[in-house]
Amino acid sequence: MYLSTSFLTETFTVLGTAAFALSAVLAANEKRTDVFSVVVLGVVTAVGGGTIRDCLLGVPVFWSEALFFIWIAIISSLIGFVCVPLLKRRFVNRLYLYIDAIAIAMFSIQGVEKAWDLGFGLPLGPIIMGVLTAIGGGVVRDMLLQRPTLFLNKELYAIPVALGCTFHVTVLALAPALSYISSVCAIGLVIYIRYLAINKSIEVPSWAVFQ
Amino acid sequence: MYLSTSFLTETFTVLGTAAFALSAVLAANEKRTDVFSVVVLGVVTAVGGGTIRDCLLGVPVFWSEALFFIWIAIISSLIGFVCVPLLKRRFVNRLYLYIDAIAIAMFSIQGVEKAWDLGFGLPLGPIIMGVLTAIGGGVVRDMLLQRPTLFLNKELYAIPVALGCTFHVTVLALAPALSYISSVCAIGLVIYIRYLAINKSIEVPSWAVFQ
Amino acid sequence: MYLSTSFLTETFTVLGTAAFALSAVLAANEKRTDVFSVVVLGVVTAVGGGTIRDCLLGVPVFWSEALFFIWIAIISSLIGFVCVPLLKRRFVNRLYLYIDAIAIAMFSIQGVEKAWDLGFGLPLGPIIMGVLTAIGGGVVRDMLLQRPTLFLNKELYAIPVALGCTFHVTVLALAPALSYISSVCAIGLVIYIRYLAINKSIEVPSWAVFQ
Repeated sequence: MYLSTSFLTETFTVLGTAAFALSAVLAANEKRTDVFSVVVLGVVTAVGGGTIRDCLLGVPVFWSEALFFIWIAIISSLIGFVCVPLLKRRFVNRLYLYIDAIAIAMFSIQGVEKAWDLGFGLPLGPIIMGVLTAIGGGVVRDMLLQRPTLFLNKELYAIPVALGCTFHVTVLALAPALSYISSVCAIGLVIYIRYLAINKSIEVPSWAVFQ
Repeated sequence: MYLSTSFLTETFTVLGTAAFALSAVLAANEKRTDVFSVVVLGVVTAVGGGTIRDCLLGVPVFWSEALFFIWIAIISSLIGFVCVPLLKRRFVNRLYLYIDAIAIAMFSIQGVEKAWDLGFGLPLGPIIMGVLTAIGGGVVRDMLLQRPTLFLNKELYAIPVALGCTFHVTVLALAPALSYISSVCAIGLVIYIRYLAINKSIEVPSWAVFQ
Repeated sequence: MYLSTSFLTETFTVLGTAAFALSAVLAANEKRTDVFSVVVLGVVTAVGGGTIRDCLLGVPVFWSEALFFIWIAIISSLIGFVCVPLLKRRFVNRLYLYIDAIAIAMFSIQGVEKAWDLGFGLPLGPIIMGVLTAIGGGVVRDMLLQRPTLFLNKELYAIPVALGCTFHVTVLALAPALSYISSVCAIGLVIYIRYLAINKSIEVPSWAVFQ
């Protein structure tokens, strides 16, 4: 059986967008919102980071030319609204966390490459844009729902993304010929640290936290 | 007596902008802010939604070429600051709610048409831009004041706007010749549902809310 | 001893950017965040206001062509994370408040001039952009940390900025030949009122606050 990279990328783009929307369903469920709010929050979470990134880059908002991102977010939110008890089951929740890990890894590296190709503020700009792509939507979701943003907890979520983006930008700067291998390694690095965080409950070490 | 459409539109643009600013006065009054914060929040509420919309559309911010929106917001906020006890009287408050209903109806349809004319992400893009135009400013106002955003209550506020925008986009897509009649109907639809919400206390039905 | 204006401007740009980042360190310290969040919040606070301004103006984000703003914010945040007990000492804290006062004064007038040169919504647009440049980053920082934004306290912080920007725009409109002297006076005005607020604990007068 042959699986092309582009097929894998597309599959995980769809699954990742859905995972982002489902994170909004879970957050909205805590706050007992209505289904319309769930859909809006699902869309904001799924495309919010990339939207802010594109505004800062000064390019057209990506989903205006690829509406399927919005459709996936809407449909996932609606399915999530109906099936929220299922989402909370241990096995499904675990699966969802892994898909989310793949999503933040992939979307952040795509964000890095978009900024890099535009020559936006090299070399720091692409790292910032990569992190923003991955976490921006979730941060806006939490502000809209009056939940603590990820800056207020000790989960290893944004840090692996930042490490992966920094790794990839370093290779792009020093050995551009290795960019493809580097992107795969960076995505793997993000997913691996997220795996440790999810499965082994590894948190930010205490020396890196205000006492 | 003859009232042109454009005269009516202009009147309600002025009144609607004022109503948005006054909603910020009422929200800021709850939090005992100072008059400068009232003015800033009034301006943010009045033009915030359209400002974010224009950033996403990649066009110049509308009020940079139509400063009277800012002037109306400033003056309304100042008047509101002085006359806030009046604003809370039952009759005046009712009147304000109806003007606000007309405003969100009108501004959202204008937002739809701006995005439609630019061909922005048809057909979903204009619906999103319409809703954003109407509710964006109020959402930012609530985040700045640490109040629950509209996603956290069950009032029928954003839903009628979304229905009106969806109706109008459907007609624009299927029967563009009817666009004028459609915009009037869509505005009427939003106002009618808001009327039911204000006057009959109709809320989001319980099957559409997380249990 | 000869000190050129441009040397002074550059010195206070560096110090001011650092002061903004340190305000994020102090805010993040209250909430016991980790060092990564401190750096992100430091960068957001330091360049957030100017970033939103540039999005509204429709020009490239300033730091994409001047990355040293980001480097200063990152390094200041890291130093601040390690030295936070020092930052809280009375003398250092006082010094930091004065540098912050110079920073908001200078950055707001720079924001005014950027908008003025672009002819953005004259004459109100540059005032709004000036205030946004100075306070935008801090407001976003507080929203990300679930702290009350400056709209919710009675400190004289945004009001002196608004007065300075209004003064400068008035002179730019009426006597453009005096623009250089005006910018110096406007910066002095902001710093003076901040000095009164910091040193004499002068607050917003009670007639200007909701009773």
